[in-house]
Formats: sequence, C-alpha cells, structure tokens
Amino acid sequence: MPSPSVKGQQRGYVIPIGGAEEKVNDPEVLRRFVELSGGSDAVISIIPTASQLKDTGKRYAKLFGKLGAGTTHSLTINERSEAEDPALLEKLESSTGIFITGGNQLRLSTILGGTPVAQMIRKLNAQGVHYAGTSAGAAIVSQHMIVGGTTGLVPTEGGVNLAPGLGLANTLVIDQHFSERNRMARLLSAVSFNPFLIGIGLDEDTAIFIAPDNEFTVVGSGSVTVVDASDIEYSSMAEAGSGEALTLLNLKMHILAAGSRYDIDSRQPHIT
Amino acid sequence: MPSPSVKGQQRGYVIPIGGAEEKVNDPEVLRRFVELSGGSDAVISIIPTASQLKDTGKRYAKLFGKLGAGTTHSLTINERSEAEDPALLEKLESSTGIFITGGNQLRLSTILGGTPVAQMIRKLNAQGVHYAGTSAGAAIVSQHMIVGGTTGLVPTEGGVNLAPGLGLANTLVIDQHFSERNRMARLLSAVSFNPFLIGIGLDEDTAIFIAPDNEFTVVGSGSVTVVDASDIEYSSMAEAGSGEALTLLNLKMHILAAGSRYDIDSRQPHIT
Repeated sequence: MPSPSVKGQQRGYVIPIGGAEEKVNDPEVLRRFVELSGGSDAVISIIPTASQLKDTGKRYAKLFGKLGAGTTHSLTINERSEAEDPALLEKLESSTGIFITGGNQLRLSTILGGTPVAQMIRKLNAQGVHYAGTSAGAAIVSQHMIVGGTTGLVPTEGGVNLAPGLGLANTLVIDQHFSERNRMARLLSAVSFNPFLIGIGLDEDTAIFIAPDNEFTVVGSGSVTVVDASDIEYSSMAEAGSGEALTLLNLKMHILAAGSRYDIDSRQPHIT
Repeated sequence: MPSPSVKGQQRGYVIPIGGAEEKVNDPEVLRRFVELSGGSDAVISIIPTASQLKDTGKRYAKLFGKLGAGTTHSLTINERSEAEDPALLEKLESSTGIFITGGNQLRLSTILGGTPVAQMIRKLNAQGVHYAGTSAGAAIVSQHMIVGGTTGLVPTEGGVNLAPGLGLANTLVIDQHFSERNRMARLLSAVSFNPFLIGIGLDEDTAIFIAPDNEFTVVGSGSVTVVDASDIEYSSMAEAGSGEALTLLNLKMHILAAGSRYDIDSRQPHIT
C-alpha cells in the first residue's frame, strides 16, 4: 500500500469492516488502519454515534493508542445539533483517520445525515483522510445503504430496505456480519433493484481496504462475497408480488479470502 | 410437459424435491409427479429406506392414493439383503413412478448402493420410469452426493463431504433444505472441487422436474439456486489449508422461482 497522503490531492482509503473485528490477538485490520493513518503521527477521530453504549468511543480510543496511534479522540454526537458544533468540527478537521463504530446504522443516517459532520467526512476523505468503519460504520459507506431485510439465501420482493448512506463508495452496497447473520438474500435483493450496484458481503473480522485507485484488498480472517449483477439477463423484481421469491438470471459471484484484490471500476477480481 | 412414456425408449423424468413438500393444501409437486406417472394408471413404488420412522412408506402410499395414483406400494428395505429379494424386485419392476423418501442419505447409499434395487432404479429410469425423491431422496440423485458439510455462506477447504450417489443426474450436485438450513457454503465447496459439476440448491417444497431432454422446470413454493462454476477463473481449493476460507473467482449464479427453466447441457436458464 502507498504511504498515507494526509490532506493531499489523492482520496483517502475507505475501509469498511464486517463487524466484530479482532481487538486483542493480532488485530490486523485495525492495526493496518492505524499505520495507514500515520502511526505515531496519526490523529484518529472516533465517532461512536451508532452505539448506545457510553464507553464505545473511549474503548476504541484506547485500542488505537495501544496500536501506536499518536493522537485519538472520541467525538460525542448523539443529536443533530451536536454535529454542527464548531469545536467538534475543528477536532474532526485535524484527523488523518476517521473511524465510525458499530451499532445502529439508522442512528448514523438520521443523526449525521446532511450535517456539517457528514459533509466534512466526505470532504476530508476526498482530500486524503482515511475512513474506516465497522458494522454500522461499514454499512454507512454505501450511497444506498442496507438498513434491514430478510435473512436467508433467497431474495424476495421487498426483501431489503435501503436508505441513503454517506456515499463514500457510490457503486458499492455493503452488508456486514455477512456469513454470520446469513444475509445473502438481502444483498441479492439490493443488487437486483439496479444492477449498477456491486454487492459486497463482509464477514466479521474482515475488511476491504479500498485504495484511491478504486481497487480493494481483502484483509482479515474471514471472506468477502462479491455479487455483480451487471451481466444479469433477467430479474423478476419489477413484476414480483409482495414478498414473492425472485428469479434472477446470470449473477456473477466471487468469494474472496485475505489478500485477494478486486477492481471496482472494471469489476475484475485478482488474486495476489 | 410431454405425456408420460412408461417403459418407452425415452428416459423418465428425474424429480429431486428439497424436502418438506406440501402434502395437504395444494400439494403441487407430488400431484404433478402422480400425474406424470400415469394418474389412475400409475404404479408408484415408495422406498422409505432413508427414514427411521416405521410409517413413512405407508403415509406416502396413502397420500399418492389420495392424489389419484391407481396403485401404490411401499417397499421395506432396511438391510442390503432385502435389496436382493426377487419378490420385491418384481414389484419394483412394475412401477411407472419410483419415490424415495427423506431421512438420512447415508442410509440410502450404504443400504442400496450397488444392490439389484439400485441397478433396477437406474435401468427403469433409463427406460422411461419417473423418479422422484425428497430431501435424502433428492440428494441421492447426484453421482457425487453431499452427505455433510459446513453451514453458512462461505466455502472452506474441507467444507463438504461427498459420497457416491445413485447418479441419475451425473453433472448435478443437489442440496436440499437449501435456504432453510443455510447451505450455500457446502454447495460452493462441492462445485469448486470440480467445475464440471452444476450446484443445485433446492428450497423446501420446491422441486426441479428434469425432462428427458435434460431441461428442468422449477415447481413449488420456494426457489432453486443454481451455481455454475464452469467459467471459474480461480479456485484456491488445491492450495488452501485445512478449514481455510476459499477464494473463488467468477462463479455464475441463478435464482430460479417456479416456472423458470434451465437447460443442463447448455447451462442456460430460461424464463417461461
């Protein structure tokens, strides 16, 4: 990976993590995020808005410190008004890395959506600041974010609920806890709405590191499932009745373990 | 569908059912099997070997009778010696349709494998007698039969156990209770061993009716997942360590609801 370009011309990395990332023994995903953000020069802002637990932000601050981050701060934002606080925005602007924790992604979209904090995250990432988010913090990366849906394998009409996310990766629709919570059905439902979307299913303790050139690398102990509907020959989504099982012809699927790479623009996987 | 060709030159239908097929309200899958087998002229032999319950055979005999089958008989085969009984073989030979119930597919392969009963089922089907089997009776249709494996979405090295089946559909590897028991992982593991296999995941109360020309039609209330690895660009199966997550690039997938058709020889799906 290239060395971090803090507030340079190049976009920062975008790192959605599938949740439940390893924190104690060999926390590879988080360590690579800290290194990318500058290690001892890193300034990492943690946004624990999705979580309802009081200590989530502090816990991650401590953890990133242990992993070598020079400066960490947790930014408490539990109401939309707090997402306009100039002191808080000043802290956020000093970041070399931004981390959004897990919890409820609807808290992220309803509390942060359209606020100066959301605008600044997008701007900073475009300027080279790295973004990582786990679970809800991964889902919010999508422009079209999955907020709920049917469990299981088989997609159905109405089998997924979408909401606008942060849109740091516009063509991806990202789901998390993917194998663990059996979420193929809702990911397939999502891509079948509009095949321009690439479906990304992240297992727990597994992340994709999306480089500025839009190629991602898989890091972590699980797998990443990529569902590409761009060659789809038929989807019954438009005609299906409420809750009906869908017919989808010619979906492309890749299962990617650690080290595998995928080029988002050309939709081509590569092994290392 | 063409009219039934009893002991003609054309092969009989092969009908694997994903288990838990509807038996009371609108039992479409079973009814179509009875009609195909000749309705009031049908002679349906039921082989309940997979089941450990005493009344499974009789229960299906009664059910097929209700659905209009002229003659039904349940053939008790709990030991290999019984699968050589001339009186039983004579009954079996009179069938226009053969039905194997659910239970443990290893009972089917260990008790029936290589016996005169297994040979006769293959011969009769080749001569035009229709075969249907549910759950274990569907799995045994495969030449390479899934007998166990990992639950979940992500395939792993060692994530599936195969055993020789009846081989009524050589290129298919058939799994059942597919969505309900979350079996994508083991189906993907199976096709990644050798991409000549087409993976078929049958949901409960859902069947494929494989016609003599090797095109199948989906019947029932659930979906059929087809995984086609013939265009696979890379599989890490050969290099993966024990239990390791696999990388599989460029799998093709189709989700087929009732009425959808798939041509096994050309590997092409069609909507009706």
